[in-house]
Amino acid sequence: MKILFVGDVVGSPGRAMIREYLPKLKRKYRPTITIVNGENAAGGKGITEKIYKSFLESGAQAITLGNHTWDNKEIFEFIGEANWMARPANYPEGTPGSGYIIVKVNDIEVGVINLMGRTFMPPNDSPFQKAEELVEKIRERTPHIFVDFHAEATSEKQAMGWFLDGRVTAVVGTHTHVQTADERILPEGTAYLTDVGMTGPMDSIIGMNKDVVLSTFLTNLPARFEVAKGREQLNGVLIEADPKTGKAIHIERIRISEEHPFYS
Amino acid sequence: MKILFVGDVVGSPGRAMIREYLPKLKRKYRPTITIVNGENAAGGKGITEKIYKSFLESGAQAITLGNHTWDNKEIFEFIGEANWMARPANYPEGTPGSGYIIVKVNDIEVGVINLMGRTFMPPNDSPFQKAEELVEKIRERTPHIFVDFHAEATSEKQAMGWFLDGRVTAVVGTHTHVQTADERILPEGTAYLTDVGMTGPMDSIIGMNKDVVLSTFLTNLPARFEVAKGREQLNGVLIEADPKTGKAIHIERIRISEEHPFYS
Amino acid sequence: MKILFVGDVVGSPGRAMIREYLPKLKRKYRPTITIVNGENAAGGKGITEKIYKSFLESGAQAITLGNHTWDNKEIFEFIGEANWMARPANYPEGTPGSGYIIVKVNDIEVGVINLMGRTFMPPNDSPFQKAEELVEKIRERTPHIFVDFHAEATSEKQAMGWFLDGRVTAVVGTHTHVQTADERILPEGTAYLTDVGMTGPMDSIIGMNKDVVLSTFLTNLPARFEVAKGREQLNGVLIEADPKTGKAIHIERIRISEEHPFYS
Amino acid sequence: MKILFVGDVVGSPGRAMIREYLPKLKRKYRPTITIVNGENAAGGKGITEKIYKSFLESGAQAITLGNHTWDNKEIFEFIGEANWMARPANYPEGTPGSGYIIVKVNDIEVGVINLMGRTFMPPNDSPFQKAEELVEKIRERTPHIFVDFHAEATSEKQAMGWFLDGRVTAVVGTHTHVQTADERILPEGTAYLTDVGMTGPMDSIIGMNKDVVLSTFLTNLPARFEVAKGREQLNGVLIEADPKTGKAIHIERIRISEEHPFYS
Ligand SMILES: [Fe+2]
Ligand SMILES: [Fe+2]
Ligand SMILES: [Fe+2]
Ligand SMILES: [Fe+2]
Ligand SMILES: [Fe+2]
Ligand SMILES: [Fe+2]
Ligand SMILES: [Fe+2]
Ligand SMILES: [Fe+2]
Repeated sequence: MKILFVGDVVGSPGRAMIREYLPKLKRKYRPTITIVNGENAAGGKGITEKIYKSFLESGAQAITLGNHTWDNKEIFEFIGEANWMARPANYPEGTPGSGYIIVKVNDIEVGVINLMGRTFMPPNDSPFQKAEELVEKIRERTPHIFVDFHAEATSEKQAMGWFLDGRVTAVVGTHTHVQTADERILPEGTAYLTDVGMTGPMDSIIGMNKDVVLSTFLTNLPARFEVAKGREQLNGVLIEADPKTGKAIHIERIRISEEHPFYS
Repeated sequence: MKILFVGDVVGSPGRAMIREYLPKLKRKYRPTITIVNGENAAGGKGITEKIYKSFLESGAQAITLGNHTWDNKEIFEFIGEANWMARPANYPEGTPGSGYIIVKVNDIEVGVINLMGRTFMPPNDSPFQKAEELVEKIRERTPHIFVDFHAEATSEKQAMGWFLDGRVTAVVGTHTHVQTADERILPEGTAYLTDVGMTGPMDSIIGMNKDVVLSTFLTNLPARFEVAKGREQLNGVLIEADPKTGKAIHIERIRISEEHPFYS
Repeated sequence: MKILFVGDVVGSPGRAMIREYLPKLKRKYRPTITIVNGENAAGGKGITEKIYKSFLESGAQAITLGNHTWDNKEIFEFIGEANWMARPANYPEGTPGSGYIIVKVNDIEVGVINLMGRTFMPPNDSPFQKAEELVEKIRERTPHIFVDFHAEATSEKQAMGWFLDGRVTAVVGTHTHVQTADERILPEGTAYLTDVGMTGPMDSIIGMNKDVVLSTFLTNLPARFEVAKGREQLNGVLIEADPKTGKAIHIERIRISEEHPFYS
Repeated sequence: MKILFVGDVVGSPGRAMIREYLPKLKRKYRPTITIVNGENAAGGKGITEKIYKSFLESGAQAITLGNHTWDNKEIFEFIGEANWMARPANYPEGTPGSGYIIVKVNDIEVGVINLMGRTFMPPNDSPFQKAEELVEKIRERTPHIFVDFHAEATSEKQAMGWFLDGRVTAVVGTHTHVQTADERILPEGTAYLTDVGMTGPMDSIIGMNKDVVLSTFLTNLPARFEVAKGREQLNGVLIEADPKTGKAIHIERIRISEEHPFYS
């Protein structure tokens, strides 16, 4: 049982990387399920139905989101029917869309949960309480559970890893757009990585035009952020789990860029 | 010209790693200068004079700090005479201690600057304006400048990297206690890494007892954090630069833990 | 039906004001119920059992709290038996103490709810969702409901006022320690005041020694806050409601200080 | 020497109040100088040149701003020539516009300083350090100095009051849009009020459509805020000072609304 996950896809440069490398990565690693975080896919802000479908066509079986879920208003029109997309589960009851999905591939069911942190982020329901509730529920059907914890603070992300250790296959973080180097299998069998990193422009500030973002730090004046141009990168993670128990047995970071070329 | 830097040393487990591995790393890499971030060295909170001196004895030539600089009150007694220690330079004028130091090793002078971010952190003077001022000043003496940017947000850290690209040898981040995997040489010759990571307990939440920290996320009640026990890790970075121009030519992450044993 | 409420009592100067003026205010206004916010009563940080009891002896029937509820560790020993004390109700399930109480005075039952904001405050469950739940529950017994919404942002407080308008007798804010001048009866009959203000030292920064607090703004260095000395003030509010419907018919701010002496 | 100041004017309802009541207030109180905070004058977000001029025509001699200064892009076109407008002075050097102005009325010069807080607000230069610098400079010309401290936290605002006590005529706060009831003359002669309050829609959440703002608190989903409709209010403050020394001798809150009708 293998899970391939690709971190926050930013704008058209990120989408180009998905189109080109998702098929190649799938051929190389033969994942049971492929998941993509698409919260920045539409010009850095949210996702459209067309992009959602293009990710599925490129080979993803599930899409996760984050704090940018609602930035593109089109989301409200198609989230209700987007059966393979999860938005952060700890939005209040009644929020459009679902906080988790269960994907059946061959005979294996995989639960995919999206959660959002609260430290240095807007208020929301407790991601820990919601994780508890969803994990217990999904475990009645399958031990294969993947958690994309979209959060800012490393402490909150590590806390979630320890909280779910032994109960899910993997807890990986997204949102900071920078891949961390702390991949490990926690003692009870949960694969963990603080942040998977982003997929999109290389020479940028978290995917956005670096001159514009830098100017806001220098002047404190507002500016219109735009997705950066130029060469690209892809950041992802591959997790392998015992097909019976769902316990992780391997976790491996994936980086594709000029300095880290893809080898098939 | 080589710079060895070790990230936030947390409590006695972190200090034990410094004692054991700093000499080994120096023998292996033969750095021109060795720098240690010590903001969490005293029980996770600040640093004492004894610890400061022990780091020098273990082979460091410079110590950097961060938002925890003032946690141990002893700092106010010895910071004035701690000639090889830099606290964040963008504290207001009149703050005890210095925001940078210049270390002379053989015939090479190396400037070491400590700065603190403002995004998701307490207010302070602009780290960008202060960087501008200090870098211009130090460059009159030497092109070898190392910047420890102690900050939370990846965007602010990347912005600092681009801001100083070509003007300093390296900009590396600290504070999140998790090493990132995005080391690179920026186009104009500055080595960059978003976060070096911490040195201390492995099975912890950013160095602290994981059960205690997790309980605060679950209950929202206060708790007394304490440094975790158990096996340790060391996180650092090695940068190599052109001895004439100060431009970086190589950057390499360092991790030591059970899973990543040290090879001499 | 009259409700007398006194805002955040800070340290011994605040407690002295309660001892002296609570009896006088009760003689003057003859409130049906008297409520005191005691989150800063013990040296500015939390409350002790002795102080809790002294407030009851001075004439309060209910005590509310806030973000400082847990600062004095003694709280964990007596909150379980403190039947006339409410801590913020939107702490997670399982938190010691109760988020509301129902006080019976003569034949009238009055519900007292304590809630805490989330804007510029630590994460917690939704105060709006919790308010909805508790108000509906308490209204089955009585239309007389008083809400102390302990929050920072004026927007969140006004939002709560509008949210509960017509369903509770009063929504008043605490936490900023400064009385606002916007008392009013909302269109559906709920009395509203953004902040009641604090009870304690007059020449201070929100009750604390002004030189110490000012020094932290000037230096960004930590300092040990202490309750200020000198002359005192009391800030409160009086609400009158229809004894049948619970709808507010009058709201009046109360200030006692040298400049605003008490008249019996 | 009298200073009339009107708090944050919000949208067209606020501007209508200025047109109607600024002349009436001037006839009633005969202020030496009249100042208006206009940071929300253009649809709640920033100010245009036309609005700026209309405020001068209605009788203001000085306009102050705040965190919304840059929301309407037109500001960048006219702020350079807007001689009677001050934006927060603690933006970094090189920011368009001026952080203070000096208005000469008859033979009296009045300095008007605008500053912005940093607690719960975006990073900026220290408002205390900038206040120190500007106050010392302006006092060489005149002891009549009015400070509009645009800030969120009551602690930071009170700290500024104590910091400048005896050195300026008045420190009044803006930004929370709710008038506070703590007007006083500090011991050394500075008039102080934590917040003057806003001028605009009465039945709103800080001036904005209450249903829209409330929905964001309930759902955590983004929404497009718009200025509320319906009846209006004006909040201001009148300060009287000794014409020789500039020391305040009187401070008085001003509220105009249906419940607080204007009497000439
Ligand atoms: Fe993202
Ligand atoms: Fe995000
Ligand atoms: Fe640290
Ligand atoms: Fe730190
Ligand atoms: Fe309080
Ligand atoms: Fe509080
Ligand atoms: Fe405003
Ligand atoms: Fe504002």
